[in-house]
Amino acid sequence: MTKVRLDETHDPARRSFVEAANQANTDFPIQNLPLGVFSTKSDPVPRIGVAIGDHVLDLKKASGATERLTQPVRDALQETSLNSLFALGRTRLRELRRIAGDMLDQGATGNQVRRHASDLLVSADECTLHLPTKVANYTDFYAGIYHARAAGALLTPENPLPPNYKWVPIAYHGRASSVQVGQGAVRRPLGQRPPAAPGTPPSFGPCERLDFELEMGFYLASGNNLGKPIPIAEASKEIAGFTLLNDWSARDVQRWEMFPLGPFLSKSFGTSVAPWVVMSDALAPFRVAALPRPEGDPRPLDYLFDGEDQVRGGLDVHLEVLLSTAQMRAANTPARRILTSNAKYLYWTPAQMVAHHTINGCNLQAGDLIGTGTISGPSPAELSSMLEFTSAGTKPVVLPNGEQRGFLLDGDEITFRGRCSRDGYVSIGFGSCTGRIAAAEIASLQKQVA
Amino acid sequence: MTKVRLDETHDPARRSFVEAANQANTDFPIQNLPLGVFSTKSDPVPRIGVAIGDHVLDLKKASGATERLTQPVRDALQETSLNSLFALGRTRLRELRRIAGDMLDQGATGNQVRRHASDLLVSADECTLHLPTKVANYTDFYAGIYHARAAGALLTPENPLPPNYKWVPIAYHGRASSVQVGQGAVRRPLGQRPPAAPGTPPSFGPCERLDFELEMGFYLASGNNLGKPIPIAEASKEIAGFTLLNDWSARDVQRWEMFPLGPFLSKSFGTSVAPWVVMSDALAPFRVAALPRPEGDPRPLDYLFDGEDQVRGGLDVHLEVLLSTAQMRAANTPARRILTSNAKYLYWTPAQMVAHHTINGCNLQAGDLIGTGTISGPSPAELSSMLEFTSAGTKPVVLPNGEQRGFLLDGDEITFRGRCSRDGYVSIGFGSCTGRIAAAEIASLQKQVA
Repeated sequence: MTKVRLDETHDPARRSFVEAANQANTDFPIQNLPLGVFSTKSDPVPRIGVAIGDHVLDLKKASGATERLTQPVRDALQETSLNSLFALGRTRLRELRRIAGDMLDQGATGNQVRRHASDLLVSADECTLHLPTKVANYTDFYAGIYHARAAGALLTPENPLPPNYKWVPIAYHGRASSVQVGQGAVRRPLGQRPPAAPGTPPSFGPCERLDFELEMGFYLASGNNLGKPIPIAEASKEIAGFTLLNDWSARDVQRWEMFPLGPFLSKSFGTSVAPWVVMSDALAPFRVAALPRPEGDPRPLDYLFDGEDQVRGGLDVHLEVLLSTAQMRAANTPARRILTSNAKYLYWTPAQMVAHHTINGCNLQAGDLIGTGTISGPSPAELSSMLEFTSAGTKPVVLPNGEQRGFLLDGDEITFRGRCSRDGYVSIGFGSCTGRIAAAEIASLQKQVA
Repeated sequence: MTKVRLDETHDPARRSFVEAANQANTDFPIQNLPLGVFSTKSDPVPRIGVAIGDHVLDLKKASGATERLTQPVRDALQETSLNSLFALGRTRLRELRRIAGDMLDQGATGNQVRRHASDLLVSADECTLHLPTKVANYTDFYAGIYHARAAGALLTPENPLPPNYKWVPIAYHGRASSVQVGQGAVRRPLGQRPPAAPGTPPSFGPCERLDFELEMGFYLASGNNLGKPIPIAEASKEIAGFTLLNDWSARDVQRWEMFPLGPFLSKSFGTSVAPWVVMSDALAPFRVAALPRPEGDPRPLDYLFDGEDQVRGGLDVHLEVLLSTAQMRAANTPARRILTSNAKYLYWTPAQMVAHHTINGCNLQAGDLIGTGTISGPSPAELSSMLEFTSAGTKPVVLPNGEQRGFLLDGDEITFRGRCSRDGYVSIGFGSCTGRIAAAEIASLQKQVA
């Protein structure tokens, strides 16, 4: 790994007066300070906060407890989503993270936040977490080459990667309205399932091959105007922060609908994100080189190539997927980790995704969400969807209680976690992104058929 | 055609005191009353208006001139986009159209609007027209079967229609941020163009096969909650109104990028819509039966089938495409009509598109935009993109001045028009949707390569 300029926000010696933030296993030490939107029973208006240990700092209120925030930041902190704050750009976000850290620092004297902690800090247990931004645009890439190869191999084993894969950071426009914060139920979609044989009718009903896809997501900062591409060298500055993303997928619906225009209803029933946005600045120590391209792979085209991005454009985030079934919960069995992966396996860096997305002039907007695509790794334990690691359901996962899963059943709960660790730095995490499968809306189906 | 219940808003005898609205060739007689968003030099704040002849009625101001509007409508008319108004649903929109008609009626006595016409009516020439809604979600269907067949024939002549075509109303999520009102420039996108031979590198530069696609678009009214499909019988009530839509397409970029996840950058550089939304209620007299399905075609699945929709779910809108080149404009030659088509050629009705879009639980939101897909017809003069009617550029259009076009060149201006006519009714139109091709942003390209 390359050297990182350590600033005080990454100082491993730094501690918070919020005790839980100093525990080794917390996702939210003072070195992290992710942003989110929360509300409480006593104050149901969504507002911006920062996670610290087992608490949330109410930034709307706290903005009144410091003179250091500029007026634009202060104004943006009065909003019910992070869009306006992200629109201010990375420099302002860095400032805010620094100031929030100072507010929460154990050593700070005369600290207003500490003095008024009971008013400004809310126990995380009491918070309802909301979607961090109003997602006006959501794009999902296909940048996980191990996924593309594994998924492709199920269809065309002799030629698993599409011919454009190593040139084009492939992506599709996703559905923005159904992006939700990963905490609740995900309803099994109804839809057309492929015909049993070519030329016979499709069947209709609840999806029978419901799947997750382990991805990371990132949110845009200020963005660009229509017609003005973001050069690769500027692209990483346009990323406000990162999250975990579950691109729920209805594989049967997908197989039947996707030719020739790509996935549609097989994805748009729901996309889950973790509630916290880990800021790009918090991730600085955990940047790594882009995935090495094996000999024979082409050098990226100029608009996708930047020396700095090659050296530090990747992300070392350890990812894991946990499964809990209804039967396991009834027996008080904890969720089972079924696979792990790492964001460093992406073939295209987030900066390359931004540069590619805008090369045609497409305008990205503050708060837009971009998914990386499923992040599988080279080993069989790193195949990051049921489709891949059960070989399309033919080799089911066997759980300790004897249950088997080819795809997800009703009541199954999928949780993603992500964590960054590096010698000499305090580990930071992404919180969790969870969804429990609810039964399909059969009543609505029957009403229509009746 | 079936009988339509004529209400006074369609009464052909009705006339407006705005004289131009009574001309036979106007798109905007008192029987139409489309909604839009406009501003003027003297009042640059965008506001909601209704087109009448060669004028625009300022509904924000006019809402103060009547007691008949309900408070929710009055509130929504203070907004800078139509989203809140559309969210009120079709019944409220019908009310508003009726009241606007009464305000503009020649015969109304004691009419506040007429009395204060100089304040409430703005000459269309003085108006800047804005995007009618904040488009949070844009979906593009592929419901034009003659287009699907013509486009498919260029790739796989032996089997032009995908096997799912007659079962699935195929669609893809489009890019919402780059939807713009069709009046200005459309910048030629940069991008990767397909390799000259398999296994060789793609080239990079300005799109060389820039195309339009003639479509209609429609805007959602109230929409649905996540997880709650809109039944086909309710679907047409969820459509606030219609517009013309140009799905600009970079054919070379598209061919290279679209496998396997569909079109992305080849579309997201810009989508143009006409500035006016012709309300569903204004179109009532021009509804026709769904396109007859030839023998052998399957009956739509239950969730897509509704008797009333089969009888009146189609739309009889005559469409035309005009081309004007820089050379033609220099010679003061008027734009040339290069093709015509009709919305009645769609294989899937708008209601079927809404029912399909939500069957998986996907939530549609007020102001969302849905494109129908390219509306080609059965004759060669009704192939509604350059790709189709020039056979992928191999049979260029020859213009009267000798110029030829396989695809669009810089300076070319494409204009869509649409018009509904029926015996016994006053014709109404959609205004126009125009875009002029601007040269690619080469400077930005060169800066990056340097």
